[in-house]
Formats: sequence, structure tokens, C-alpha cells
Amino acid sequence: MADEKKTKAVKLANPLTASIDPATQQMIKRAQELSVDTVFDRAENMKPCNIGLQGTCCKNCAMGPCRLPLPKGGIEGEDDRKGLCGATPNTIAARNFARMVAGGAAAHSDHGRGVAEVFLSVARKETEDYVIKDYHKLISIAPHFDVATTVEVDGETLDRDLDEIALEVAEKAMAEWGRTEGEPYYMKRAPEQLYNRWKEMGVLPRNVDREIVDIMHRTHMGVDQDYKNIVKQCTRAALADGWVGSMIGTDLQDVMFGTPNPIQSEVNLGVMKKDHVNIIVHGHEPILSEMIVAATQSKEMIDYAAEKGAKGIQLGGICCTANELLQRHGIPPAGTFLQQELAIVTGACDAMVVDVQCIFQNLANVAKCFHTKLITTHPIARMEQNNVIHIEFDEHHAMDDAKRIVKMAIDNFENREVDVIIPPIKENQVAGFSVESIEYHLGGSFRGTYYTLNDNIINGRIRGIAGVVGCNNARTKHNNDHIEIIKELIKNDVIVLTTGCSAIAAGMHGLLTPESAAVLCGPGLAEVCETVGIPPVLHMGSCVDNSRILLAATEVAKAGGLGKEIKDLPVAGSAPEWMSEKAISIGHYFVTSGVYTVFGCHMPVEGAPVFKDYLYKDLEGIYGGMWDCEADPIAHAQKMIAHIDKKRQELGIDKARERVLMDMAARQAIEG
Amino acid sequence: MADEKKTKAVKLANPLTASIDPATQQMIKRAQELSVDTVFDRAENMKPCNIGLQGTCCKNCAMGPCRLPLPKGGIEGEDDRKGLCGATPNTIAARNFARMVAGGAAAHSDHGRGVAEVFLSVARKETEDYVIKDYHKLISIAPHFDVATTVEVDGETLDRDLDEIALEVAEKAMAEWGRTEGEPYYMKRAPEQLYNRWKEMGVLPRNVDREIVDIMHRTHMGVDQDYKNIVKQCTRAALADGWVGSMIGTDLQDVMFGTPNPIQSEVNLGVMKKDHVNIIVHGHEPILSEMIVAATQSKEMIDYAAEKGAKGIQLGGICCTANELLQRHGIPPAGTFLQQELAIVTGACDAMVVDVQCIFQNLANVAKCFHTKLITTHPIARMEQNNVIHIEFDEHHAMDDAKRIVKMAIDNFENREVDVIIPPIKENQVAGFSVESIEYHLGGSFRGTYYTLNDNIINGRIRGIAGVVGCNNARTKHNNDHIEIIKELIKNDVIVLTTGCSAIAAGMHGLLTPESAAVLCGPGLAEVCETVGIPPVLHMGSCVDNSRILLAATEVAKAGGLGKEIKDLPVAGSAPEWMSEKAISIGHYFVTSGVYTVFGCHMPVEGAPVFKDYLYKDLEGIYGGMWDCEADPIAHAQKMIAHIDKKRQELGIDKARERVLMDMAARQAIEG
Repeated sequence: MADEKKTKAVKLANPLTASIDPATQQMIKRAQELSVDTVFDRAENMKPCNIGLQGTCCKNCAMGPCRLPLPKGGIEGEDDRKGLCGATPNTIAARNFARMVAGGAAAHSDHGRGVAEVFLSVARKETEDYVIKDYHKLISIAPHFDVATTVEVDGETLDRDLDEIALEVAEKAMAEWGRTEGEPYYMKRAPEQLYNRWKEMGVLPRNVDREIVDIMHRTHMGVDQDYKNIVKQCTRAALADGWVGSMIGTDLQDVMFGTPNPIQSEVNLGVMKKDHVNIIVHGHEPILSEMIVAATQSKEMIDYAAEKGAKGIQLGGICCTANELLQRHGIPPAGTFLQQELAIVTGACDAMVVDVQCIFQNLANVAKCFHTKLITTHPIARMEQNNVIHIEFDEHHAMDDAKRIVKMAIDNFENREVDVIIPPIKENQVAGFSVESIEYHLGGSFRGTYYTLNDNIINGRIRGIAGVVGCNNARTKHNNDHIEIIKELIKNDVIVLTTGCSAIAAGMHGLLTPESAAVLCGPGLAEVCETVGIPPVLHMGSCVDNSRILLAATEVAKAGGLGKEIKDLPVAGSAPEWMSEKAISIGHYFVTSGVYTVFGCHMPVEGAPVFKDYLYKDLEGIYGGMWDCEADPIAHAQKMIAHIDKKRQELGIDKARERVLMDMAARQAIEG
Repeated sequence: MADEKKTKAVKLANPLTASIDPATQQMIKRAQELSVDTVFDRAENMKPCNIGLQGTCCKNCAMGPCRLPLPKGGIEGEDDRKGLCGATPNTIAARNFARMVAGGAAAHSDHGRGVAEVFLSVARKETEDYVIKDYHKLISIAPHFDVATTVEVDGETLDRDLDEIALEVAEKAMAEWGRTEGEPYYMKRAPEQLYNRWKEMGVLPRNVDREIVDIMHRTHMGVDQDYKNIVKQCTRAALADGWVGSMIGTDLQDVMFGTPNPIQSEVNLGVMKKDHVNIIVHGHEPILSEMIVAATQSKEMIDYAAEKGAKGIQLGGICCTANELLQRHGIPPAGTFLQQELAIVTGACDAMVVDVQCIFQNLANVAKCFHTKLITTHPIARMEQNNVIHIEFDEHHAMDDAKRIVKMAIDNFENREVDVIIPPIKENQVAGFSVESIEYHLGGSFRGTYYTLNDNIINGRIRGIAGVVGCNNARTKHNNDHIEIIKELIKNDVIVLTTGCSAIAAGMHGLLTPESAAVLCGPGLAEVCETVGIPPVLHMGSCVDNSRILLAATEVAKAGGLGKEIKDLPVAGSAPEWMSEKAISIGHYFVTSGVYTVFGCHMPVEGAPVFKDYLYKDLEGIYGGMWDCEADPIAHAQKMIAHIDKKRQELGIDKARERVLMDMAARQAIEG
């Protein structure tokens, strides 16, 4: 009976070691005072399965689950561990890895498909609530779908009707999930040599869905039992995620909701307001939350809130829904993934509206302890608990649904039960760096290429580019690794592109302001940031927007002077506090697009050393990128910098850096 | 260090308690004498994870794996177990169940897609090795795809060109995996009321792949956290398996390779011949093995074998590849899933040729101890071990590949190393009962409907129909539960339809002969079997051929007198020794098509009692079918019979049975 107690939150987390953010610390403490358990407490009470952590637990058939832990002291002699069917640790860990890719690619791509469906409704004029906001973006992506943007009439070239273009793009986009022949259009957006490498390796996806289904077949009991072949299929599926499902998602969101441009905002729980109706949107898809934004800004709703005694309506976000609204509307994120419960613990959250992915089922339990209405909105994401309200959102009556939700929040304003305690902690930030806006800010004097960025990399002011992305994980100190790694990178003149909860963390800790550059950056990067007026850490959006990083890297490769494909560039990727299967899919499409990618916390591959070596070493010989894992944040950043330096050396631009003597001296001064 | 030893086969299985089959017992013993470990030994040495067995281990994100075992003594008060995110046991078990459906549906459907691709090649005349063997079947399925089989010319109705029909069917079939609108054509093959029920419940699949991908998204961390909603998606995906992916697979295999008709053969390891070249084909897809059949029967290869000193070429099968070749060519199965290693242990297996699914990775280790060439042939199913030969099969040069493989086996005949010991044990059997042939054998006097079968059910000679299908599982005595259950059913006048390894087991133990009826059946069923000359257990093919059972049940419903849909019929399903994720997908499409379905061994739902009740009880109210699990074979069969009796009562035909007094007396005599 002692055993069962383990699953109950009997130990309490220490707020000071749980997070580096004072707002988070304060709310963890408050939750504990109110006897509301949060993920931080649960992490104290539930130990992860050690064999699962190693990646060598197989439950893919009912003769198992078979468990193949690494012997203490490691393998001596031949590794003869095997499951009932004979599956080796390599097979098991590779299967588990592949199913993570499948889960992650499915999540992203299904999100992309949802966007494509709404866009098809728009193109077919079946909805009035959504419109095309960014025709420029539509025109820019049309050629990638082989959609003509001009017509020849009597020998004259005329602009083609935009509605026609939209419809053709919409139909072609939708078909990418299930096309029966050929390959997805977007694959050719990659640098030509990279595309050719994929083709030669036989890893060009056939369509989005098929590659995910193929993984599920291949990882079924008794199918693929060659980890290299399993990883090959992971590559197909992950590329279909990054370069197709996610990329189409990002593009069509930009078309409908506008391509982001730098925009100022705030971040952290302190953005909530005691005297306002507070609505928190949480999840990933902006389809609904875009309507919520419009509804909260409508006179009807503002008046109604006033009628109910509120000074206004404060909208805030959590997770990637937050990032979507931030980058296009400046709506402030109220927190990261790990703060979702805490937004309710303030006592000021009148409604939390969730869509899909990364939503704690425990929100329902926390909401029960406060007045908060917890509203699920997506047909594929409901909750078992009966205090959860489900208002199924449909693009055909989107604004009606949104107003109903906002009204429910306003009606709930007067029901607040406990003292409202909003930590008075927030930071300023600038977000909204799309590929297009980076081109504008860091582009050449003709504002059309990434030439100036490349030039600054070649001359050594910018040592390299890092993508730091991904989740939080309750198994490591909240935000600590994101921040330590990013600081180490920018101190060493590496410019950072960030998305997801990593971007929210960066914002929370003051790294998304141009002012931070002077204080935290090495002299070269500081000079560039100050000249152009940008932060040293560029917020590029949500997790599906990692596709923006792929395209930014492609632009850098195409701008010239730094090799021909992504693997040649002085770039590295990182997911310091990853948690979700999506991170694995993202990691794998970065690796196989040529990026050295380091994960924090742990990777479930330690139980299968040969498979691990394949990911961490052998892949470099195939795609130029490879996986790595390093839990210590400084060592993690230094590994990235070492890779960047290796690439600079291969490009012969390490010498150029050494000539900038004053910079070196200045850097040494800083390092001292 | 003691811990690592657990994974090594240090305990040996007791052959007598491992299997009820003497051939299996003999070969387990031989393997042990030769120090070759088999799955039976490994099952002794590796205990399954107790929490995984309960279905409440969640490794869907990297904050876990979180484990929620049921407390000893059960739940007292509120069940407050939760993972780090707050996921309840219901959510976790439902997610795990859903991912099993996804894995299983992917395996079947991807098999179906492979068949459709080859058929498209045939229709496009891109291959000469495959042809359309059964134009009658093509014509019979064309209308289900909305493909016209006639044309109007000058007011006259003429037969349409068969090549045109084939091409249109092929293209429409292929498109079912990724269609972007509407629903798969085959859904309407179900009884109308059942179709309407699915439509009303919102579970009609959109296409095959999408439903699998949807499961992977929905079961991602923080998405669907309502087990009922998760099960709803399982229904969509499982129906897409049974009624679309698998059914198209079966149909197009019949079109290309012929629709099965009753055919006599043998079964068990004793079908191998010491003085012949023995080739074992193992896996699931007949695409390659059909060519192997043709190659082994070619004069060229027979002559070559003779040249090498062999008296001929003996082809045998394992698993569903065996069933495919059995039902169309009478090629004898050499054994079930659990006998795959043992076929090599005979020392007489010159080549084992595997395609996909249920293939032990340990085959490579066993083959290494003998002269056997182990050949993988499918791009998605390779093996890590370097003694495995990969000959990738391609339908465009199918016969060349097949001959290359057969020649390799012949060349290997002279390399036999150890004494050849083939257990002299085999049984006669009749297989090949397709929906069409059952209609012929059990149909009305006009040979066009299932009327006579229904009549015999109504008059009580046949008490009901059971589908007994599925795998073997090394966690239970090999074949024991299949045989005990089937015997109990036929003793009680329940006719049995069987597929997969269950069908092989039935054959091995003499249940697939008309002669067995007189000895083992109740008097009513015996009378029917003797009159018609069929066995009381009808071998309907491979695991994808469970779609045949769906259609047979549909024919029974349509023939009248027994209600309007499958749930009204006195039928029940069973998978006594299930092991694979495919079994879960199959089980779920049977349940949601209206069939009470009992699994043996265990079901990974015990850790989540509420979710379990939903599957075992609540689903009946929605679909008419529900899950159950019973490890004891007699109790298992009796549960099925009780359900059949309940349905007879609901139909008002329980009275009719009582009037057949002589039959009752005879039955009592038998029961006594």
C-alpha cells in the first residue's frame, strides 16, 4: 500500500529550485498554501521509469512489455539483450524514437491540415469570419505550389485573379496530405544540393500522412528490425513535418492572419490585470484564438465587460497559441507551458480557453479550486472531468463561437472566489521576426537578400546562428537551461533564433529587447544589433514556425559566401528543456536538413549505445547534421559554439575572425 | 549485475507446458539441446512489466514515463492517480489502446495499399508478372467503387472494357488512403442501419491514413484527455482498417491471385521434406510469395533442384503469408507464429523468406546456428544482423526476384550442417472459405444468398456463428486456448469462422476437416456439416481477411430473418491468444460493427477500471458490440455462447430451438 502513495503529491516542490522565474516561484508557493498540486509538486512525487528513460522498454506487442535496461557497468562483450521476439535494444529504442517522430509530426501536420481546411473554406467563400489579410504572402507562396500568379491575355501578361490563386493554392495545399504520386511541392524550397541529397538517400516524403502511417506499420511487432532503416523512415516523416505540414501551416496562417513584423509587447503572469476580465488562450492553433482577439476588441464585448464592472478585457496566452497572437497582434504571453496551472492559481483567470497540444489534464482539477471556466474547443481535444465546458469551434460560425466564449468569461468576472494575487512581474519584449522581416532588418542595402547577415557572419561580427527552441520540462529547473544557453551563445557572438516556450522564456528573462544586446552580447553581435536596432535573440513564433528557421537558413545558404547548403553554415540547434514528441520530430528534421542539434535533459537512447552512436555520429556523414544531448547548459552551448567554429574553419572564415583583433580583445575582456 | 542476467535465457522452457503440439514440443527440446534459445525460453526469463500490462504506463512525453499502477486492494474513494501533466489512468490507458489501434490499422492498411499499388501497376500494364486472374471478382467489386461495368452504346447496354474497369478501380482504390473529401466508398457495404449508426455517431472515416494520423495527434501529450473521445477516434481508424484498408487488400488480392475456394492441404512442421529443398515464406503480404510459388513450380527451378541432388522443392508457410498461399494454392503452412524459429531448428530449412509483420528478429540468431539463408525482401522490414540477406522485391521485376531467391535456396541445399530432424507430424485440412464459396456451400437452393445458413440458424441446428481469430502469444500455452475454445463452441453447435494463426492452429489440431464434425460437434452443427460436406471450422484466410468475416456477417444480416444489422445476429468474436496491435484494431472494428468480442490472455486496461468498463459495457449501448477478456478458455467460450443465446432470445428464436427435442437430447448426451 505504500506504493500507491507515490502517485499522490505528498512531497512539495521547493519553489526556489523549481524555477528561476520569481512569478512562477510565487505562484507555486501560493498553490501549495491552497493545497492545489501543480506539475512542480507532481514531479517531486513521481519518478520517471528508469528503463523507459533509456528508450529500451517495448510495449509494441502483448507478449511484452519487454524491458532491456543497460546493465550497471555497461555492456561487457557481446550485447545479447533481446525481447521475447528477439528485438535488440537498437530496434526497441529506434522504434520508440520513430513513434515519437510519428506523434510529433502528426501533431504539427494535423495542425497544418486544420489551417489548410480553414483556408480552403476562405478560398471557397464558405466563411465570412476569416479573410485573406496578406495577399503579398499568397503571391509569394503560389509559385511553390506551381500556381501561376499571372495570365497571358492577347500576348499581354496580366495579374491573375487573386481569388483564383487562393483557391488553387488551397486545393493543392490540402492535397499534400494524401497525394498518391510524386512528392510534396515544398521539398524543392530547400537548397538544391540538400534536395538532391534527400533524393539520393530515398527520403523525399511521398505525402504527409503516409510517412506517419508508414512509421506506425514499420514499428509494429516484427516489421522493421534494422535501426538504420527505421531512422530513414523517421527522416521521411520528419521532413514531411518541417518542410510540408508545418511549413504550409505557417504560410497559410500568415496569408490569413498576416505575416509577422517586429512588434512590442510584454510577457509573464504580470500581464494579467486584477480589474480586467482575464482570458487566457492556451494551446497551438491560432484559428480560434484569432477570433477571440477580434471578439475581445469588439465594442460589444468591451461594453459588456464594463457593464459587468470590469475595466476591460485582458487577453493573454500560454504556449504556442500565445506566440501566434503575440507575433501578429502583440497580445502578451502570460507564461510558458509550465505556468499554465499558475495562471489559474492567480485567482484572476476568468476563462482559460484551450485548443490542442501541451494542455495539462490537471487544469481541470486546478480550475475546480477557483472560479475559472475551463473551455475546450477542439473536437480532438476534450477532457474527462465534468467541470470542463466544451464549446466546439467551427470556422463556419467562428465569430459567434468566439463571442460566446468571451461572454462566458465576462459573466464569470463577478464570480471570483479567492483573493486575486497576480505577481507584479513582467518584461518588455519585441517579437515577430518572420523570414520576411529578418530579410528587411538584416538584409542588404537593396533589402532583398540575406547578404548583409552573411557578410556579418563572414567578417566575424556574428560568429554563427543558433536556433534555440522547444518546451519546458518539469524534470529540470523551469527556464534555467533556456536562459543559460542563450546567454552563453550571445555572449559568444552567436545570434539566436527562438520559437515556442523557449521564446517565451527568453522574453520573460529580458532577452528579447534590443537593449539586452549591449549588456549581454559579445562585441561583434552587440555592434550588429545596435546598428540595426534588433534584439540578439529573435522571436520567430510558435513551434510550427520552426519552418521559418528552415527557410531562414535556406536564405542564408542561398545568399552566398557560406557554402551551398544548410550543413555548410555555422549554425547549430538546441532544445534545452524539451518534453514533447514534437520536439523529436523538429530535432530530426533539423538534423536531416544539416543542422547539428543538441537536446537538453536526456534523450531516450542511452539503453541502446549503437543506435545512439548512429544518431549522434553516423548521421553527420549522411546529412551533415547530427543529434547530441547535453544536460549542462554551459557545456551544451559550448558544444554548439564548437560546431559553429568547425564550420567557420571549413569555410575558411575562422581566419577572418582572427583579424578583427579589437573584437577579440573586447571579447576577452568580457570573458574575463 | 544480477539484473542483467534476467534478460538472458538462463531458464529453459518446459516443452510440455509450452505447447500442446508435439511437433513444437520436439523442436523446443531440440533447440535447447543445441543451445539455441527460442521465444519459449525467453518467455521464461523475461517477465512483462506489470504496469505496462495494466495499460497505465505513459511514455508519450519526456517528463515521464509516468506509471500509475492500480493500488493493491483496488481504489478506495476517489481515484486521484495522475501523471505529471495530470493525465488520469483512463486517459493513459485510452491513449495506449489508441496507439495500438493506430499501429494495427497502419499495418493492415499499409498492406492493403501495397496491394493496391501493385494492382495499379497491373492495370497500367507496367508489369507482366502479375495479371488479373479473377475478372468475376473485379466485376463484383467495381460497383462498390462507383465504377460502371457496362456502357450504353446507341441505346444498347454493352459490357465495358475490362482493362478500363481495372484502371478505374485501381485509381479509385489508391485514392482511398488520402481522399480529401467525402468518405471511403466501401463504408456503404455495411448493412444500411449500421452505416447510419456510424454516420450519426460521427465515426465514418474520412480516409484511411488520416484517421491513423489523427490518433497519433490526439494521443500526443496534452491533446485528447477524454477517454470516450479517444475511443471514438479509435472507432474511425479501426473501421477504416476493417472496411477499407483490409477489405480493399483482400479484394484486390482476390482479383489478382484468385478468390479462394475450398482446397485440401496439410499443416505443421511435418510438411517439410528432408530430401527436398525447403523454402519457408513468412510474413503477411502475398505479393512476393505468389511469385515464389510460380518460381518453385517452374521447370527451370525444378530441374535446377534436381541437378543439386534434391527430389524437389517444398514450399511451406508461416503466419499469414502461409494462409494466403494455402487458400489459393493449397501450399501447406509449416506452422504458426510461435513456430517460426522451430522451422529453422529442423535443420532442413534452406531458405526462410520474410516480408512484413510478426517476424522475430531472433530468426537471424537462429539462422546463424544452422545453414539457413534468411532473406528479407521488403523495403520497410530489414534486419540489423549481418547474416541476413536483403533482396528487395519490386513488382516490376517480380519473377526475376523470386527466381533469384529460389535459386539461392536450392544452392543452399547442399550446405545443411546438422542432422535434419523434421517432426513427422502433420494434419490434413480444408481451407479456402471465402464469402463467395460459403455462399455456394451454405447458400440457398438457388445458390445466391445466405438464406440456407440463416434458416439453419433460425431452426436451431446452428446455434450461432463465432469468429475465432488472431495470433499466438508466448505468454500462454501455444495453441491451447484456440483449440479449447473452438472445441467448446462447435460442441455447442456454434459454427466457427477462423483466420490467421488461429486458423493454422485449428488445422494443426484436426479441426479443419469435414470428418471432425461428427466427432466434435453438437448434433445440429454436425448434421449441417455432414449434409453440406464442410468442416465445422471454416478457414477464411489471413488477418486482413477478417474483412471476409465482416462481409459474411453482412450477408447473413441481409439474407433476412435474423435482424437488420450485425449487432442483431447470434454471433461473437474471439482472439484467444492475441499478441499484436493488429488484433486490437481488428477487435475494435468488430466491436463497433456490432460484435461481442472476447480476448484471451489479458487486456492492458486493468489499471483503468472506468475506461475498462467503457470498453466492456458502455460500448454495447452505442454499437451493439463490446469488448471482453477471459483467459480461461472454457469460460471464454461460454461467454460467447451466452451472448449468442441472448441474441437468439432477442430474435425470438430461442423457442424454436427448444422444439427440436431430439437435438437437445442428443446434445445432453454429448454434454454428459
